[in-house]
Amino acid sequence: MGSYSTTSSSAQNSPKLVFRQLFEKESSTYTYLLADASHPQKPALLIDPVDKTADRDLALVKELGLKIIYAINTHVHADHVTGSGLIKTKFPGVKSIISKASNAKADLFVEPGDKIYFGDIFLEVRATPGHTLGCVTYVTGDGPNQPQPRMAFTGDALLIRGCGRTDFQGGSSDKLYDSVHSQIFTLPKDTLLYPAHDYKGFTVSTVGEEMLYNPRLSKDKETFKNIMQNLNLSYPKMMDVAVPANMVCGLQETKSEAC
Amino acid sequence: MGSYSTTSSSAQNSPKLVFRQLFEKESSTYTYLLADASHPQKPALLIDPVDKTADRDLALVKELGLKIIYAINTHVHADHVTGSGLIKTKFPGVKSIISKASNAKADLFVEPGDKIYFGDIFLEVRATPGHTLGCVTYVTGDGPNQPQPRMAFTGDALLIRGCGRTDFQGGSSDKLYDSVHSQIFTLPKDTLLYPAHDYKGFTVSTVGEEMLYNPRLSKDKETFKNIMQNLNLSYPKMMDVAVPANMVCGLQETKSEAC
Repeated sequence: MGSYSTTSSSAQNSPKLVFRQLFEKESSTYTYLLADASHPQKPALLIDPVDKTADRDLALVKELGLKIIYAINTHVHADHVTGSGLIKTKFPGVKSIISKASNAKADLFVEPGDKIYFGDIFLEVRATPGHTLGCVTYVTGDGPNQPQPRMAFTGDALLIRGCGRTDFQGGSSDKLYDSVHSQIFTLPKDTLLYPAHDYKGFTVSTVGEEMLYNPRLSKDKETFKNIMQNLNLSYPKMMDVAVPANMVCGLQETKSEAC
Repeated sequence: MGSYSTTSSSAQNSPKLVFRQLFEKESSTYTYLLADASHPQKPALLIDPVDKTADRDLALVKELGLKIIYAINTHVHADHVTGSGLIKTKFPGVKSIISKASNAKADLFVEPGDKIYFGDIFLEVRATPGHTLGCVTYVTGDGPNQPQPRMAFTGDALLIRGCGRTDFQGGSSDKLYDSVHSQIFTLPKDTLLYPAHDYKGFTVSTVGEEMLYNPRLSKDKETFKNIMQNLNLSYPKMMDVAVPANMVCGLQETKSEAC
């Protein structure tokens, strides 16, 4: 996809970001709500919504007076079913978004360098494969009217003091190392990092912190690859349900091409 | 206590707040780390630390290059043991703080109107009894060099779309209603609300939102009292361990007067 904008207007106001971090405890997933409150329509998007908490998220959207336009995934999740499909059944105008490289179904497909506009704020798409082939990181824009410090929604590519596993779904520790070092660690050090999961109670980190203290990704590549080869993780219990559902955007019953 | 300041200097820099929200999943407790990064010593405090996650919090304090000076509680918790005592055993210079009205032990006792300085940033103390007799809310200062919007750490007085129970520890639904309406709902509507707990995956709310959408406290007082009288909650499983421990700041073994 190219640059999607909800408006062609030249609003003189600085964009004002509404931001909420939301947690789904069964899969320890973070969903993020972002909106441009300075835009008349208050266009909003959800990053990595979960089916089980979609109603909670939509109630919040309503209470805050926002208009949801996009349901976005960082990748095809293996541990929970995306809320994108459910959200689309309740708000048919909402467009689902995922990377073209994921090979999953969605209304819109993004590629590296694309910009996703909501009001006057945008997310930039960066390819960060390694956990899966199609993983992307969404980063708030670089510009005078964009949120400062920048914010990066890293999915499972980079977790706080950790990272996603690389042993299935086209995973590659070699690729993940390169992705994080070239696409995330090159952002300004004060960039706020918001992962798709946390299991220890952390809510946010920064690029500077992870470069120094990430016990895996602060190491050299060979050490990192060794660590990832010896994690001995069990098979994800939700995988056989979640992956097929998420390949069709969480709507297994849908007959339509886009979901 | 009066106004505690870590410095008498007249730093020309605007204070810069370091802020982290941390979660303890067993009791669904939020701990908050705040520090003044613009001050040479980077003085920091923890609000409502939990014993089980004290090591995590102290590791983060160290990695961020902060100097912890206070371990603060909003009240005597009934559902988990405070981390204050454990933190003090590891960092003997840290002072524990709780309200005078709590009747618990601590190094320093606060009363309504007191200011707790860390660097050039301060928290203002507001009495918000009702969940317990000694509950207080800590609110970031009102001033040109203080964080904007303001932030209120409400303990169990006000939860996101909820509130703490009022059926033990000197609880009173009548008092809680008055506390929230006179001490929290009078703050600017964009004030960010950070509670001691959340059970639904919310991380933050605002005064404006809770005034409109809190299903209990947006009602009139009689309706609120009726709701609180009919919650039929079970006895907290941790209460008989947590309350005695928290009355002495989490250090049951201590022989000293202050803990």
